[in-house]
Amino acid sequence: MNLYDLIVKRRSIRNFTDQEIPDSVIEELLDAANNAPTGGNIQPLSVILVQEAERRKRLADMVGSQPWVKNAPLSMVFCLDFFRVKRWAFMFETKFMGESALSHFLIAYADVMCAAQSVVLLAESYGLGSVYIGTIQSNIDKARDYFEMPQYVLPVIVLSLGYPRSVPKNIPKLKRNIITHRERYRTLSDAEIKQAYEEKYGNIDDKAEKYLERAFIEVIEADKQQDEKWIEIAKDEMRRLEIRNNAQFLFELRYPAERMVKLNEELIHAFTNAGFDCFIDTVVEEAG
Amino acid sequence: MNLYDLIVKRRSIRNFTDQEIPDSVIEELLDAANNAPTGGNIQPLSVILVQEAERRKRLADMVGSQPWVKNAPLSMVFCLDFFRVKRWAFMFETKFMGESALSHFLIAYADVMCAAQSVVLLAESYGLGSVYIGTIQSNIDKARDYFEMPQYVLPVIVLSLGYPRSVPKNIPKLKRNIITHRERYRTLSDAEIKQAYEEKYGNIDDKAEKYLERAFIEVIEADKQQDEKWIEIAKDEMRRLEIRNNAQFLFELRYPAERMVKLNEELIHAFTNAGFDCFIDTVVEEAG
Repeated sequence: MNLYDLIVKRRSIRNFTDQEIPDSVIEELLDAANNAPTGGNIQPLSVILVQEAERRKRLADMVGSQPWVKNAPLSMVFCLDFFRVKRWAFMFETKFMGESALSHFLIAYADVMCAAQSVVLLAESYGLGSVYIGTIQSNIDKARDYFEMPQYVLPVIVLSLGYPRSVPKNIPKLKRNIITHRERYRTLSDAEIKQAYEEKYGNIDDKAEKYLERAFIEVIEADKQQDEKWIEIAKDEMRRLEIRNNAQFLFELRYPAERMVKLNEELIHAFTNAGFDCFIDTVVEEAG
Repeated sequence: MNLYDLIVKRRSIRNFTDQEIPDSVIEELLDAANNAPTGGNIQPLSVILVQEAERRKRLADMVGSQPWVKNAPLSMVFCLDFFRVKRWAFMFETKFMGESALSHFLIAYADVMCAAQSVVLLAESYGLGSVYIGTIQSNIDKARDYFEMPQYVLPVIVLSLGYPRSVPKNIPKLKRNIITHRERYRTLSDAEIKQAYEEKYGNIDDKAEKYLERAFIEVIEADKQQDEKWIEIAKDEMRRLEIRNNAQFLFELRYPAERMVKLNEELIHAFTNAGFDCFIDTVVEEAG
């Protein structure tokens, strides 16, 4: 398969066989991460490999009981790592204060994601499937403690990998022209936006199950792997909240708007616990 | 070339021929961006294609007079776009408040970088070279104005692309085992960290030019493309600041630690101007 097809057809895989991933493959995935582009060649990345059954289970609990994290033979915890950079600077008689500089944080975060996405695509080319798990960010304190991370190390994203047992159907995407702008940003009219999303999702009507298949593939995949009837639970919630379209589904059921805003405090608290204070002050004092 | 070699050998390219990139190739790169993984399939991404000579020049000025941005036949401005998501939610009788939710911001930023890195690798497979430009983040206000971005759209990173005129030498990387941890984070000792960086860079000694070739490839590449003697300027600065190793080079000359922290205020101000207030308050009020 050529790279274009691989990239465009790639789906997140949440249902894995028990087949182990050979060490030689894991080493190549780590090489991909280690050679990803990184601003100033600073390499603010650490990757924790999680393969032991008990630790996979604990990690799965930490990210919200996602069965695929438990079942995947390998999860990689991608960390933004300023600990190593700070010690390096200190030992070579200078200082690095990236934990207080939003700009360093944002570029380092970009670096980590470049590394993760290089791993995703290389893994795919080896017949592996993978799924990103962002919810580690809801449990930073617990993850840092469990994985014994020192100050200035933040878990950013988890990538669970394994050989696919099943591949979900294509999920709908906006058309290419909706995300593309030539020379300047073209602000779409309300009518254009409405049409773009109607083409992407259509209405829910009363075919909730069919709808979940396109919109919330996680409940379908979880249903295959656990005793709980996740599809029924989701359908009940959709009825209770009177969900009539995908926007309401996403921002009332899946990521309730106000609850997401309320998470800020917890998240910033966890960052601060890890030594990152770049999110706190808008007015910065003279650094000593 | 197989994907492993492509990923591991890929270098940032800053010296491009004048050859145009065919539209069909650009369309495939956009497909790669549009089909990248995205949390909840929200697709908070817009890409602005910059190809007109005058606008390439203005973009180059905006990111700190980087000649490759002017010389590359194409630059893509990757934007985190909540404008479209918010209008969509509004029209479908719900609301999206991602601009106030740090968690939404961080996942969307990850989405944008996954898209960008998919483009980087696909471009490489087509014989194109590319370079990420993060300094657009130092000029968000100006970029938003020039590219006519509405509220809730943030330029995150620029990717400049073209056919390589020259490929820089390999740059040094930490060894794979330095970034790898098994089951739990292994805190390296000072001695291990010192050795890791000595192996990566070695000392500067008095061979400043050779050193710049490994450490600050940008000055070498800029020298090839402009009349200014960038290498001489960098060597003078290194002498003036008494730079003796790479840590000092990075955090005193290239990213001076205290100046980086002072940028916070400006950066947060620019985010706020764009409608993003997720970086401001640690205590969140009940949303109305």
